[in-house]
Amino acid sequence: MGYNLLKGKKGIIFGALDENSIAWKTAERVHEEGGTFVLTNAPIAMRMGTLNNLAEKTGSEIIPADATSIEDLENLVDKAQEILGGKIDFVLHSIGMSVNVRKGRHYTDQNYAWTEKGWDVSAVSFHKTMQTLYKKDAMNEWGSIVGLTYMAAQRVFPDYNDMADNKAFLESIARSFGYHFGKEKNVRVNTISQSPTPTTAGQGVKGFDGFIAFAEKMSPLGNATADDCANYTVTLFSDLTKRVTMQNLYNDGGFSNTGVSNEVMDAFVRDQE
Amino acid sequence: MGYNLLKGKKGIIFGALDENSIAWKTAERVHEEGGTFVLTNAPIAMRMGTLNNLAEKTGSEIIPADATSIEDLENLVDKAQEILGGKIDFVLHSIGMSVNVRKGRHYTDQNYAWTEKGWDVSAVSFHKTMQTLYKKDAMNEWGSIVGLTYMAAQRVFPDYNDMADNKAFLESIARSFGYHFGKEKNVRVNTISQSPTPTTAGQGVKGFDGFIAFAEKMSPLGNATADDCANYTVTLFSDLTKRVTMQNLYNDGGFSNTGVSNEVMDAFVRDQE
Amino acid sequence: MGYNLLKGKKGIIFGALDENSIAWKTAERVHEEGGTFVLTNAPIAMRMGTLNNLAEKTGSEIIPADATSIEDLENLVDKAQEILGGKIDFVLHSIGMSVNVRKGRHYTDQNYAWTEKGWDVSAVSFHKTMQTLYKKDAMNEWGSIVGLTYMAAQRVFPDYNDMADNKAFLESIARSFGYHFGKEKNVRVNTISQSPTPTTAGQGVKGFDGFIAFAEKMSPLGNATADDCANYTVTLFSDLTKRVTMQNLYNDGGFSNTGVSNEVMDAFVRDQE
Amino acid sequence: MGYNLLKGKKGIIFGALDENSIAWKTAERVHEEGGTFVLTNAPIAMRMGTLNNLAEKTGSEIIPADATSIEDLENLVDKAQEILGGKIDFVLHSIGMSVNVRKGRHYTDQNYAWTEKGWDVSAVSFHKTMQTLYKKDAMNEWGSIVGLTYMAAQRVFPDYNDMADNKAFLESIARSFGYHFGKEKNVRVNTISQSPTPTTAGQGVKGFDGFIAFAEKMSPLGNATADDCANYTVTLFSDLTKRVTMQNLYNDGGFSNTGVSNEVMDAFVRDQE
Repeated sequence: MGYNLLKGKKGIIFGALDENSIAWKTAERVHEEGGTFVLTNAPIAMRMGTLNNLAEKTGSEIIPADATSIEDLENLVDKAQEILGGKIDFVLHSIGMSVNVRKGRHYTDQNYAWTEKGWDVSAVSFHKTMQTLYKKDAMNEWGSIVGLTYMAAQRVFPDYNDMADNKAFLESIARSFGYHFGKEKNVRVNTISQSPTPTTAGQGVKGFDGFIAFAEKMSPLGNATADDCANYTVTLFSDLTKRVTMQNLYNDGGFSNTGVSNEVMDAFVRDQE
Repeated sequence: MGYNLLKGKKGIIFGALDENSIAWKTAERVHEEGGTFVLTNAPIAMRMGTLNNLAEKTGSEIIPADATSIEDLENLVDKAQEILGGKIDFVLHSIGMSVNVRKGRHYTDQNYAWTEKGWDVSAVSFHKTMQTLYKKDAMNEWGSIVGLTYMAAQRVFPDYNDMADNKAFLESIARSFGYHFGKEKNVRVNTISQSPTPTTAGQGVKGFDGFIAFAEKMSPLGNATADDCANYTVTLFSDLTKRVTMQNLYNDGGFSNTGVSNEVMDAFVRDQE
Repeated sequence: MGYNLLKGKKGIIFGALDENSIAWKTAERVHEEGGTFVLTNAPIAMRMGTLNNLAEKTGSEIIPADATSIEDLENLVDKAQEILGGKIDFVLHSIGMSVNVRKGRHYTDQNYAWTEKGWDVSAVSFHKTMQTLYKKDAMNEWGSIVGLTYMAAQRVFPDYNDMADNKAFLESIARSFGYHFGKEKNVRVNTISQSPTPTTAGQGVKGFDGFIAFAEKMSPLGNATADDCANYTVTLFSDLTKRVTMQNLYNDGGFSNTGVSNEVMDAFVRDQE
Repeated sequence: MGYNLLKGKKGIIFGALDENSIAWKTAERVHEEGGTFVLTNAPIAMRMGTLNNLAEKTGSEIIPADATSIEDLENLVDKAQEILGGKIDFVLHSIGMSVNVRKGRHYTDQNYAWTEKGWDVSAVSFHKTMQTLYKKDAMNEWGSIVGLTYMAAQRVFPDYNDMADNKAFLESIARSFGYHFGKEKNVRVNTISQSPTPTTAGQGVKGFDGFIAFAEKMSPLGNATADDCANYTVTLFSDLTKRVTMQNLYNDGGFSNTGVSNEVMDAFVRDQE
């Protein structure tokens, strides 16, 4: 069912954990489109997931890497080029984690050591990845780098907690690094701001099911699924979007530009009666 | 209770109809702050309202003007300067009307003659007002012009209908004319994007009460009232905001940057159960 | 060189004039991707251009239509479905014109009859097109409608004149109609905000060459070309972007998120010395 | 020359270093408007500056505090309330510093220990300040908190380096904490996005003079000065802006909504000839 959109392209995909992961779906779709890649995740995440299945299915190798470690990233970038036989055309960064959320600390009662940890994993890792690629001159001209984000970077969703600030930082990195990577090497950098998606990670957030239902009703086309995100990412990796860069792109069924939908308004009015 | 923020300043206030009007409240506050002004509204609107009371209370004269008529606007600007004894320091544009809304035509079933009428009254009138002031060199240096708008210009609120597009046009005029008025005469131009406000005009919109309640619950500080808007406008007319221009400024208790509040989420979940 | 991304899809392409047109390039690319379509333009525009060549090359029929005329649009939508043998999957709206610009009227000295004409042609025509499609139930589920716009809708480029306000209105229509078309028929509506492009129409704007050069230097990846826009539009017409809607998408080499580039800053400093 | 806008209000002002500081000018203006406050800065910054002069002039006490230290902030909030005789009405956060900038490290060659330090000082300190105030219930109802930021959070200015990402994080904190502080205690939180300003800190950035000149020419009203920022901050501390919250407010002479000015365009064209 592929179009050969990514034939001959080589990449690195971060963050696939299990078959609910957006990165997992993206890897499958990239494979269908003719792209080849290495898979990577943190050693601890890999123990929890089933990444080997994906590697087998897509004929990919796995290179474990802690994305906050420059040493690990350097090894990853070197090995990926060896395995793939050349420079990199595409990178997916799908990494995010808040210790404050996991441990149930309210946004107004942060443990700042945890804040720092979440920021490093969720946001700075994107910079570290790009800086490693940049210094090693590992990206091909007109390559494409995509990070995943969420609209909490623009508007408050109370339970999203400090991940909102991390996503704002991540999106800023996409612009800042996108400028330099564009100028120097014609590489583009964008973020996709995705509907809330029932991944294994997402499901850990308090009240997540209710929120998924709310977003579904707010979005004229309904929530974008992990498959939708995989497809959208494929277009951003392809040669059809060569001059799209430094953008934050909403893949959300229209939620971001909907003030309120009739369905949500009706539910609100019914509840108030 | 005033601070003398507008002592010695002269202006024109469009759009006061009755004591529920934002323009009415603004006129009262401007008067308290030491500003003097002429009041204006369309002849037809004046017959429906009680503008004479406001004129009396604030010691102001009324100059009727159809804000879509260049002739009327020229007369208004000339007379206002005569009456006030000099050039203009501040202008409030609070005008909006959609025939499609009034006549119950859905956004997907517009009568385009009505669309054109609403656009002319609600949006182009702002350009016509500024063009008249500009050509007559009627604004003092560092004067301030404010138009009222609504967030439907950025995000869809289905019942707001074609007023959304008109407000987008209005906000664009503020930027475009703000550039030229700034460069040439150091005049600033901004729009205030106000919470839904139970004015006599607003109350004509379908489901308006429910929507007011919804916005109240979405906004961390609650809806901004007409009084809040009057106060905010006073700061924009004062000398304390001299380099704020071409901006769209939200006066909305935080709604615009709230993705969802806990209260709205809870109401939604209760209704779905 | 196609990927078969649009195989079996049927559409309408507005606004191709000659081989410099974005719509022309888009038609060529859509054809390569397996899409079929009718071409349309205003009768007067068709006399000036060479649309027959494009029709021949792509095996398409031409249906003349004034996009401000409901009657013409109804005929277009009916005929297009007859010719293509079914409902519509994609529409490109690439129409824009300002009489004030053509006649050299400054933004602060508008002829409002011309303002109205430009607004109707450049912006309302997008609404009229969608309303006609909507009422006739002429779009297939998950169809895609794209309008072309420019960043002047967000920021002032002085020579762009009243087209800025028209583009702001157009983008608002995309959101407003996108909500309703999404809810009712799962159709998506987006705008592409394109780099300044040396089309025959664009070249009429004062100082256009200098501006193209400026944008080139401001954009980390350089200006997006008409070919880039055609490619990007293909992705938006494809099934890979099904839940992207109500968005304004920049195809501009990064200009929109660049405050200033080193090259522009250096040129400025040199000039000031 | 004051209006008594802040009569009876009590506050804390962070970040005054010398008479070029925005915080210094703000303290002077707040004093003129009848507000009382404590001044604070990092012990190291205080040794370099002349804060005692400001304290004397405004009848204020100084409480040294490292804004990254919870212990120092707790002491500050306790002492400030003792000295001022009650809860706090207003807070100005004017703190920013990038070690990477100081040490000349390019954005693509960050030392991540320095990145972390700059992030903690420039952005997290804003959260720490608010969390301390929140936990101690030290803010009065309808109090106002303002942080200073720069447009690099939205668009790339290459020399601004990692401060761009820090400012994006800071602005996100304003929204996130603004939501909770609003809901719980009716306190508003905003950021002012100020023109580049020739403070002692700002002057350390490479090419700063050229950039100031560029911004001056891009801004229809010219750059906002430190005095303009002080005035604008006074309005945000006053009771006239009670429902403005979670906003990022540009005080920049219109730069943010100017795509290019005629002056900058002319300079560019001259240089290219």
